[in-house]
Amino acid sequence: MRNVIVTAIAVGIAFNVNAKRQDQEPIKVIEPVVGLDQQKVDLGKALWFEPRLSASNTISCNSCHNVAKGGVDNLPSSIGHKWAIGPINSPTVLNSDLNFVQFWNGRAKDLQEQAAGPIENPIEMAFSHELAIGTLQSIPQYQQWFESAYGSKNFTINEVTDAIATFEKTLRTPNAAFDKWLKGDDSALTAEQVEGYSLFKQKGCTACHSGPLAGGQMYQKMGLVKAFKTDNPDIGRAAVTGKDFDKYVFKVPTLRNIELTYPYFHDGSVWDLQEAVEVMADIQLGQSLTKDESKKITAFLRSLTGEQPEITLPHLPPSTHSTARPQI
Amino acid sequence: MRNVIVTAIAVGIAFNVNAKRQDQEPIKVIEPVVGLDQQKVDLGKALWFEPRLSASNTISCNSCHNVAKGGVDNLPSSIGHKWAIGPINSPTVLNSDLNFVQFWNGRAKDLQEQAAGPIENPIEMAFSHELAIGTLQSIPQYQQWFESAYGSKNFTINEVTDAIATFEKTLRTPNAAFDKWLKGDDSALTAEQVEGYSLFKQKGCTACHSGPLAGGQMYQKMGLVKAFKTDNPDIGRAAVTGKDFDKYVFKVPTLRNIELTYPYFHDGSVWDLQEAVEVMADIQLGQSLTKDESKKITAFLRSLTGEQPEITLPHLPPSTHSTARPQI
Repeated sequence: MRNVIVTAIAVGIAFNVNAKRQDQEPIKVIEPVVGLDQQKVDLGKALWFEPRLSASNTISCNSCHNVAKGGVDNLPSSIGHKWAIGPINSPTVLNSDLNFVQFWNGRAKDLQEQAAGPIENPIEMAFSHELAIGTLQSIPQYQQWFESAYGSKNFTINEVTDAIATFEKTLRTPNAAFDKWLKGDDSALTAEQVEGYSLFKQKGCTACHSGPLAGGQMYQKMGLVKAFKTDNPDIGRAAVTGKDFDKYVFKVPTLRNIELTYPYFHDGSVWDLQEAVEVMADIQLGQSLTKDESKKITAFLRSLTGEQPEITLPHLPPSTHSTARPQI
Repeated sequence: MRNVIVTAIAVGIAFNVNAKRQDQEPIKVIEPVVGLDQQKVDLGKALWFEPRLSASNTISCNSCHNVAKGGVDNLPSSIGHKWAIGPINSPTVLNSDLNFVQFWNGRAKDLQEQAAGPIENPIEMAFSHELAIGTLQSIPQYQQWFESAYGSKNFTINEVTDAIATFEKTLRTPNAAFDKWLKGDDSALTAEQVEGYSLFKQKGCTACHSGPLAGGQMYQKMGLVKAFKTDNPDIGRAAVTGKDFDKYVFKVPTLRNIELTYPYFHDGSVWDLQEAVEVMADIQLGQSLTKDESKKITAFLRSLTGEQPEITLPHLPPSTHSTARPQI
């Protein structure tokens, strides 16, 4: 009986600690999304892996946002149709529904709007929405899947991108060591990681990298204190707003699963995480970190790697006589 | 009691019919492979989806032998490094361990030998065995996986290709409608499919397309009775043997999952299955099929589509400081 009471008190204290820690820390726990329509998720998964959404029938969403590799391709920028080299680093699809806007420059308001872009981008999938819909419409299995999920065989790009976005919402990575620690499990982080997290806050990193994504909640200028040296000509948000003060302003990227999503920055120029931490401290915060500090912060960042999604490959239905042939 | 006896007799008859049908038919049942080393299978699966076996870090085994698409890329010939176009149609990986030799011209004796080819082919993955091993050796998780599966961290290309081949052996597609029929389930095929199968045998197709793969057991000349018209310069087995009589001689491909593995023939020139049947009858057997006949044979061929493998994507471990950068 005494043990029960002691345990109850201990749990009570732990609970308070947990609630307190979660409430007080700038980085919040990532949880799986619940309540999604499973038919849309399944259809979206097929479309996610569907190379017939590209002109060559070889490039799928997963080509550049590989869910076997942290949701990225680990290239400075992606390779598209006819080996075209993209202008900017591919962001991870993991947890991406939590971004306040999509794309580095925020030109899409949500995942559905984002998903429409690469299909018709001539240096990515190089197709068109019309051709993509024609391809899917030519395949009876897709007609059935769309009818089951959306109530009609007369689907448009809106249903295609809605299904893809719905699948993407399943790609959360919960239960990172840091999340366990946030929930009160003190053993989930090493002493070095706890120190690294303290430094991360002290140095001011959480000014931008906060919330469940540790990022993805605001725009910020790349090179706030000192100019960022890059060969990449992208002007960031200014391309959307046309405003000079938006030059080199980008969405702050998530730090979730950051150890998997190298190379870093919008130009993919830095491959080493510790180096990326040092560059950020220097040009964004005007802080010169010691090697010991950047090492500890890097150790903390590795605690943001969550459980990677378990994805069973879809079985894509065959084309028919009326399916357009690939353009090689 | 009487019902039990009647059932027992019925089962006994069915069993005899089954045993007889399986024994007497030229095409045999496909069964899953059992007894494989699961650690090698899992490691092989990671390597199968591993784009870091290619120079650009973007092309994996699965790029051209997509297990979401019948084990092929559904292209006339594959797209490789820097958008190089391959010389010959990519064969399916499904059930491929049952081929008597590998590649269209049989230049590899088994899957392990085959797997070594694309990695160092300059128009496929464009890497080298040495660089591939260097990449894998630079990643601690791969060192651990190889040690667990092969007892040593000092692995070579032999262990890499053995693991890939071991994974490939899991890619059998059992329980096709035709297999159920072979086992005695008369309802598994439609009347048209049974007729089509009879025609398939009567016309002589089983001379080459027999065994569990309905193919993959011998070489045969493409254009045995009449020349095959193609722009493809591949001379077939003659490239291996140097013998003139091996010109345009290729391994007979499997017909398993044939409805998924278009376009057809070594040059990938025919997209329609019924047309492929008619061409084969014409140039290999000197038979002019009626539309009704080729339609029935095509219906039978669709009964060879088996259960597609359920593949959960691996979680590929991140590169390290010492991993070579992709060559774009």
